Amino acid sequence: MNTLKKGVCAPQGFTAGTAAGGIKKAGTTRLDCAIIVSDRPASVAGMFTTNRVFAAPVGYCRGVCASGHARAIVVNSGNANACTGDQGDADVLETARVVGEAIPCEAKEICVCSTGVIGVPMPMERLTAGLLQCARALSDEQGEAVARAIMTTDTVPKCVEAEVKLPEGTVRIGGTAKGAGMIAPNLATMLAFLTTDAHIAPANLKTILSNAVNRSFNCICIDNDMSTNDTLLCLANGASNTPELLPGTAAFEQFQERFTEVCIDLACALVRDGEGATKFVEITVQGAKHDADARLIAGTIARSQLCKTAFYGQDANWGRIACAAGYGGAPFDPHKMDVVIQGICVLRQGCPTAYSEEKIQELMKASELKVEVTLEEGSGQAVFWTSDLSTDYVKINADYRT
Amino acid sequence: MNTLKKGVCAPQGFTAGTAAGGIKKAGTTRLDCAIIVSDRPASVAGMFTTNRVFAAPVGYCRGVCASGHARAIVVNSGNANACTGDQGDADVLETARVVGEAIPCEAKEICVCSTGVIGVPMPMERLTAGLLQCARALSDEQGEAVARAIMTTDTVPKCVEAEVKLPEGTVRIGGTAKGAGMIAPNLATMLAFLTTDAHIAPANLKTILSNAVNRSFNCICIDNDMSTNDTLLCLANGASNTPELLPGTAAFEQFQERFTEVCIDLACALVRDGEGATKFVEITVQGAKHDADARLIAGTIARSQLCKTAFYGQDANWGRIACAAGYGGAPFDPHKMDVVIQGICVLRQGCPTAYSEEKIQELMKASELKVEVTLEEGSGQAVFWTSDLSTDYVKINADYRT
Repeated sequence: MNTLKKGVCAPQGFTAGTAAGGIKKAGTTRLDCAIIVSDRPASVAGMFTTNRVFAAPVGYCRGVCASGHARAIVVNSGNANACTGDQGDADVLETARVVGEAIPCEAKEICVCSTGVIGVPMPMERLTAGLLQCARALSDEQGEAVARAIMTTDTVPKCVEAEVKLPEGTVRIGGTAKGAGMIAPNLATMLAFLTTDAHIAPANLKTILSNAVNRSFNCICIDNDMSTNDTLLCLANGASNTPELLPGTAAFEQFQERFTEVCIDLACALVRDGEGATKFVEITVQGAKHDADARLIAGTIARSQLCKTAFYGQDANWGRIACAAGYGGAPFDPHKMDVVIQGICVLRQGCPTAYSEEKIQELMKASELKVEVTLEEGSGQAVFWTSDLSTDYVKINADYRT
Repeated sequence: MNTLKKGVCAPQGFTAGTAAGGIKKAGTTRLDCAIIVSDRPASVAGMFTTNRVFAAPVGYCRGVCASGHARAIVVNSGNANACTGDQGDADVLETARVVGEAIPCEAKEICVCSTGVIGVPMPMERLTAGLLQCARALSDEQGEAVARAIMTTDTVPKCVEAEVKLPEGTVRIGGTAKGAGMIAPNLATMLAFLTTDAHIAPANLKTILSNAVNRSFNCICIDNDMSTNDTLLCLANGASNTPELLPGTAAFEQFQERFTEVCIDLACALVRDGEGATKFVEITVQGAKHDADARLIAGTIARSQLCKTAFYGQDANWGRIACAAGYGGAPFDPHKMDVVIQGICVLRQGCPTAYSEEKIQELMKASELKVEVTLEEGSGQAVFWTSDLSTDYVKINADYRT
């Protein structure tokens, strides 16, 4: 992954500021507040948790995204502002008002995001002080600091940037994300922010974001819990001064492809930093009847606790993989199923091959594993990325709140 | 739980035999073969894994159950006879033929079941020798031995028995089950055998079994993996000489209720012996719009890795419970949700209460936990039972195959 420092500030016209607000505990010096600002109105598109129990900022952000335009993203880590009742909603409005005055822009142009513990009222005095400090310190050198400020149980900051050389000029994409637990394929306690200086109308930006998410953030699994705060936002401010990207053009396709790659990079970075993870596992399913069937099967293997503990145990346990494939809900003939682990075919036409257990055990020691399932139903395919399930995952989550 | 020794031999007319066949490894002395026999033709009903990758004996047993009648159940542990191709199917037929000659009865009256490792050809010589030994040793004192013979990673044998005093005479129910991993709410690597001397036609037995399973084995969760071998069989031989149980009568209802209780006892015994489990957790959801909604919510909490690790950590983490409820797929107003843990209301109308963290931490040390979620959508309710997710679960499953 490309981990240059500019991240969300890589595209033209974007700056950011960060601060240590002491959100979770007063007086700590860890960065936990950030603002990302576009110097001009930007198209905005967002995708959010589908959990019925959603945090106050999620409901608010949905409204901002519906308008299609935004100037800034405001975020804190340490407090999720979820299960906080009417006070939680009021606190989001107040946050937008305060930051709007500081930038300055209208409050309704500000997306507000939170991640952290659930059910604790937001410490508004510390939050607003922290955000005002962010607003005073805006620069285009704060991309990696933003990636740090949004971390909770993450161990490494994730930021990416990319250039797309379109026929009519170069545009840039920047991004950052956080989330190491509560990660399931339908978005989780994840925050991801993407910026671009391409010129894209809000509806088209939504299409691009949605296409990219279906091949990236919705294809990863750490555990299977969907959080109350998942938020993915993209701002496109057109500062590259390239022509508007329009659907049906080659430039649009080229941008879409690169944007998806950036999202895959970020999504895989989340999996690599999964709580307690010791392995990064890529699961490919091909030959399913449809892509949707392949997704069902790949996703079921990616989520299977028994497959994930086998990966942790460096065990090429194809029985668990075949078994998980079988309950994924997609029809296939198990007598025509092949399973390849680390390049070695272990199951051919539904029966085990005479592979060398010694050789595969050696290959399973790698920190990156590849599992390929091939069926004979059609041309449907999908790729999922998952982590292993380790004793450390359990320890981290048995202790998290205390 | 009632753990008398007769188990499946408690009802009249049933005997059993067990043997150490050395199925997994030649020469070992662990019981791993068993036969349960009715002295007369019995009605049979079965429920099986819905996994598309299913073991050879599962396909075979479906056929026996379709006929409605059976005389015996033959079972081995140590080898699942799954992913074994055409040879696996041939081995099942040969097993039924050999045991049929020994009992004697017709081969097509014999249910064959297997549990254990996947993808290894059945050692037929050792299996048939073991089963012939079982057939020579039939007695009504072998109920608990059967429970032992079917164990794999289970640490305690599970057998139950019950009497139902119907107006026209007493009938008995016996049962045994195994399964400590690959346990998900749609049946898993579970085997369960129930016997009764009540007189019940096959179609009615199927109804009773199906009703009972929906409130017992389909309401438990250890991990979320559905195995290739799940089989639940019930034989009813009428040896009590009581009149046939007919739907719509009080006696039928009384039998159904008791039969369901027996299944709940067995299902909960599986959860209590879940791999690595240190807690047994009962999750009740009430006030959902429909029972089906309550099941969705209770099941999602029961499966949530984060809830299960919190139980392990003795953490009354209602945030994770509320969060899991929210992504269960059933609609409800989160602002009208109450959560009660160990009798203490921690969330009222969607907001945390001022409960004593100290007091609840003390209560969380119990080995049996109760979680109650109350909504205001209607009168739908459900109960699920789950275990916690411990570091030992991961260790057991990272090492299982080797």
